[in-house]
Amino acid sequence: MSVESRQQPRPRAGRTTAGRRRLRHALTVAAIDLFLARGYDTTTVDEIAAAAGVGRRTFFRYFRSKEDAIFPDHEEVLAEVERSLATAVPAQDPVAVACTAVRLVLEHYLADPDVSVKRFDLTRTVPSLRDREVAMVDRYQRVFARYLRGRFEEVGDPMPDLRASVAAAAVAAAHNHVLRRWLRSGGKEDVQANATAAFRLVTGAFSAPVDPRGEGRTVVAVMEASAPMAEVMRQISAALREN
Amino acid sequence: MSVESRQQPRPRAGRTTAGRRRLRHALTVAAIDLFLARGYDTTTVDEIAAAAGVGRRTFFRYFRSKEDAIFPDHEEVLAEVERSLATAVPAQDPVAVACTAVRLVLEHYLADPDVSVKRFDLTRTVPSLRDREVAMVDRYQRVFARYLRGRFEEVGDPMPDLRASVAAAAVAAAHNHVLRRWLRSGGKEDVQANATAAFRLVTGAFSAPVDPRGEGRTVVAVMEASAPMAEVMRQISAALREN
Repeated sequence: MSVESRQQPRPRAGRTTAGRRRLRHALTVAAIDLFLARGYDTTTVDEIAAAAGVGRRTFFRYFRSKEDAIFPDHEEVLAEVERSLATAVPAQDPVAVACTAVRLVLEHYLADPDVSVKRFDLTRTVPSLRDREVAMVDRYQRVFARYLRGRFEEVGDPMPDLRASVAAAAVAAAHNHVLRRWLRSGGKEDVQANATAAFRLVTGAFSAPVDPRGEGRTVVAVMEASAPMAEVMRQISAALREN
Repeated sequence: MSVESRQQPRPRAGRTTAGRRRLRHALTVAAIDLFLARGYDTTTVDEIAAAAGVGRRTFFRYFRSKEDAIFPDHEEVLAEVERSLATAVPAQDPVAVACTAVRLVLEHYLADPDVSVKRFDLTRTVPSLRDREVAMVDRYQRVFARYLRGRFEEVGDPMPDLRASVAAAAVAAAHNHVLRRWLRSGGKEDVQANATAAFRLVTGAFSAPVDPRGEGRTVVAVMEASAPMAEVMRQISAALREN
């Protein structure tokens, strides 16, 4: 995907980091507001730049295109996610590590409810922006899949690639579910409880072989036959970990 | 999504059903071969029609656009999937029902390896075709999510919507994993064993509360602490079902 090789343009020196961040945010807000008010196709870069009080050339120091302007921090968040995966300690459950990392993406949306909610409205009506968002989610998902595959291989999972693909899709779906619910509430709903439940569902479903050194030790689980599978998973997963 | 409301054009009477199917397939093969040989953008509908030995008007009786020509049976397969879900007996595990339904999609690809493998090459190089395929997968996934949500609600799952979204993503990811592996093998690999393993992983991970009438009965599971979680799931799921 061409998105892979894209580099963010670098604003030239002169403004402070905080100043650059403020201006970039102002351009994003201007772009989103104009797109919503006048339509995505008809809004020009010049109009966006003018609304943020700068010129066209300044706009292009921050973004390659008007499409870019509404996903301003994607590369940074992706880098943060990759750092989070790279620095996770091996004792942590790999699926839990992926859930912790995807939470960084969620936090990024939560940090700016106004922009997030308006962008959500835009991506629902402008196909090219929706496609761009789908491509972004796909990139996160592939980063998680790569990480999980490596971890599953380490513990001798017989089908590390399959398990990693499916678990990464589940991580992304849980994140998207929580995020969309919050966005539909206009950014008002308390998201943390939902996020915790969602990621617990995923870790419960896809926890890897827990402790390769546990071989020979035995766990006995006693449960009601009517227990929901997720609850059973949670209990067993916890039991295996404590063992 | 605008794809939702599209209707397949109806070929007019005169040809037999088998004849129409043959011609439609010939148009698909001609389109794919021309796209691969000369490029997607430069190939015209007239050229595709001529290569299949018909005129432009006949082409448009079968497809709305040249893009359409390379995904000829999408609507039919989707309808088959919906039928399969609608006629599943309530005693069946809902996630297993979704896996059985998504297997219809897989079988559809397997039935025509030559077209499937060539289309795979195309979707990897032509962004608009890739986007179209992503939108198709998204439609399947939403059909599964809707079905699963209903079934999870019936058995009193506390978060039916979340669980349905995540399980539907896992079903789609398992399917995509198996399909892509087969496509990368040039359509030569035996796919059935992989498919069985993939769908077993998903049903193991996401089986719903199994038997609401099982309340009060007890299941005891004894396993090694080093057992992979998927294996544990499989055993417990089976035990709960037998109970």
